[in-house]
Amino acid sequence: MKKDTPQHAEIIGFSVIDGCLAVGGMPVTRLAEQVGATPFFAYDRALMSARVAELRAAYPKDVHFHYAIKANPMPAVVQHLARLADGLDVASAGEMQVALDTGIDPLTISFAGPGKTAQEISQAVAAGIVINLESPHEMEVAADAATRLGLRPKVAIRVNPDFELKTSGMKMGGGAKQFGVDAEQVPQMLKRLSALPLDFHGFHIFSGSQNLREESILETQEKTINLALELASHAPRAPKLVNIGGGLGIPYFPGEQRLDLKVLGDGLENLMPRLRQELPGAETVIELGRFLVGEAGVYIARIVDRKESRGQVFLITDGGLHHQLAASGNFGQVIRKNYPVAIANRMGAPASEEANVVGCLCTPLDRLGDKVSLPRAEVGDLVAVFQSGAYGLTASPAAFLGHPPAREILV
Amino acid sequence: MKKDTPQHAEIIGFSVIDGCLAVGGMPVTRLAEQVGATPFFAYDRALMSARVAELRAAYPKDVHFHYAIKANPMPAVVQHLARLADGLDVASAGEMQVALDTGIDPLTISFAGPGKTAQEISQAVAAGIVINLESPHEMEVAADAATRLGLRPKVAIRVNPDFELKTSGMKMGGGAKQFGVDAEQVPQMLKRLSALPLDFHGFHIFSGSQNLREESILETQEKTINLALELASHAPRAPKLVNIGGGLGIPYFPGEQRLDLKVLGDGLENLMPRLRQELPGAETVIELGRFLVGEAGVYIARIVDRKESRGQVFLITDGGLHHQLAASGNFGQVIRKNYPVAIANRMGAPASEEANVVGCLCTPLDRLGDKVSLPRAEVGDLVAVFQSGAYGLTASPAAFLGHPPAREILV
Repeated sequence: MKKDTPQHAEIIGFSVIDGCLAVGGMPVTRLAEQVGATPFFAYDRALMSARVAELRAAYPKDVHFHYAIKANPMPAVVQHLARLADGLDVASAGEMQVALDTGIDPLTISFAGPGKTAQEISQAVAAGIVINLESPHEMEVAADAATRLGLRPKVAIRVNPDFELKTSGMKMGGGAKQFGVDAEQVPQMLKRLSALPLDFHGFHIFSGSQNLREESILETQEKTINLALELASHAPRAPKLVNIGGGLGIPYFPGEQRLDLKVLGDGLENLMPRLRQELPGAETVIELGRFLVGEAGVYIARIVDRKESRGQVFLITDGGLHHQLAASGNFGQVIRKNYPVAIANRMGAPASEEANVVGCLCTPLDRLGDKVSLPRAEVGDLVAVFQSGAYGLTASPAAFLGHPPAREILV
Repeated sequence: MKKDTPQHAEIIGFSVIDGCLAVGGMPVTRLAEQVGATPFFAYDRALMSARVAELRAAYPKDVHFHYAIKANPMPAVVQHLARLADGLDVASAGEMQVALDTGIDPLTISFAGPGKTAQEISQAVAAGIVINLESPHEMEVAADAATRLGLRPKVAIRVNPDFELKTSGMKMGGGAKQFGVDAEQVPQMLKRLSALPLDFHGFHIFSGSQNLREESILETQEKTINLALELASHAPRAPKLVNIGGGLGIPYFPGEQRLDLKVLGDGLENLMPRLRQELPGAETVIELGRFLVGEAGVYIARIVDRKESRGQVFLITDGGLHHQLAASGNFGQVIRKNYPVAIANRMGAPASEEANVVGCLCTPLDRLGDKVSLPRAEVGDLVAVFQSGAYGLTASPAAFLGHPPAREILV
């Protein structure tokens, strides 16, 4: 391998037992027997716990963390994080039910997302969770539901800021957006809100996600806090919640590096005094999905064929893009790059060939690894795709081509 | 609209009743009531029938058509096409069951796809369908299953040709590929095959799909026929089946035009004499998925919010990429382009604004139309996304963000 070729960030947290990758202390070969089938996603609960502990150690004590369950809505994962985090963020009535099933206080659950139906808003009002209003229309619909149900729901306004999170994997604020209410329209909306049977709870300002640059995240947090303070002066009462968004990314591709949590935590500590002074009753929340679970999950598929075609080796697995679309490069990426991939039962063996790792779908899109340096693998071996704990199974077209679904286990 | 801006090909086949788009003669507003919910996919059975009739009129009488059910595996659609087409192609054991449920002769069903598991191959042997072998390994697995079950399955060899289908949306042949057996390895494989309890049935040579250039398709068909004839000379007996692939595309994006079936049919007629003379007992099959069903389907979603953000209009629907991933530009496309989109209940109204049509998912990827010229639409109106009959629902991440599934109807 050339020295100047960008490499994947080192995979951390997983152990190797007798040459086999282990998740939660169990070799994946044994996990495959326990599950009874491949492919499957294995999530390591200890790694999720450790990630939350790292955040708490690095960040100011009065900054709280919510888990955005869209990243991985497996009920066992949500249960685990409901106990570790300070709240849950949901993006649909379906996710709301999973969150409520954990038994946490509904007031620590918030519901964001454009295009909430009247039915969904009514369900959220009945559940007593915090509704992040994405538009004046949603506000009126929530007020109607409140009147009909005889309840006074807590609502936050999701703000589309007038700045964006630079160098972000996905931009969710700034410019014209389907998300939230343009910052400049918020004062007028707050005026109307105070006339409705709605309990103003705070602001939700989410600029983007999957960012790996500390300075961009901190710069955006500073602007977000300034914006929240400015908007608070227009509110019918002081906000009790300021959700400053998330944005913390994880390294997927060669050349990407992990964020330095100390830099992020210290940087935010420098921004907190104004917030503490001007909004002493407000809870500051950071909303994280991928960052809490992404690195804790591995997708395991079995090699069912090994083929050489015109000088290239193809390892054909029983998995593929129907379970792990993002790893195939077909979900939001412009240029396909490899996720980190390994032969899970040959972790000690040196790389001895370049192989293409593909799925079993009858489409050329179904590639899990292009020309990866791997030890020689045979039919029956297990392929591990790392960084698969977030936006894996539920973000993939499970029914495509009629293959069996992947299983999920939290170990 | 500027004259030199590329436009979508005209949408054909659907009628408009009192200003409302109709599928199968039923206004989609009424279909929405019949379904009882939005979003839904509506497929027009008459348009599928018409498409098959056009093909039969244009192509030589002795060319047969198979339906590749991966394009749209809704059982009612597969039932309909099982009666119209000459056979079905499946890509998994799951699809095989749907095909067998139609009651057609199993020998008109063929099973292609890399990474078939031993279990799948055994199921296919038991079902008595034609197995397209993708590798020497699959051949041995099929022989083992044949011995164990006391059957002699019909097998075809899927060939990875030494040429590719130029200007194709997806290339599935040529160069190093996970699909099929390199043409130069086929003679050796045929030698081994003749020693196994397998009944050699023919060749499957599939070079690519979604092609809109007649000359490319015909050039590839000529090479494919030449390759089949060359390989046939190495076969233990004359092939009974020559599947020359598909490749016929449909226009999705501005500037794309429909294929001229007369040019394609006449062109293939010119290539058939050699095949008829040298392989008089062989059935020639063209395998089509998208081309049979893609233009017969519309995705209908309801507008649940209308929002203006910094000078742009956003129509937020209850649908999105969880049902129609390809229309969001996130499935295999490099540059996002709009599928044809309309306000289904305002078909007569002139365009009066530019609007972004988005889905209800809390991700910026969820866009169904960027800056589309549309009549002014309001909450409650229905959005139609055309060209949605293939690779829609099953090629989308249905569980993403926990929203309800889309329904499907064949009208």
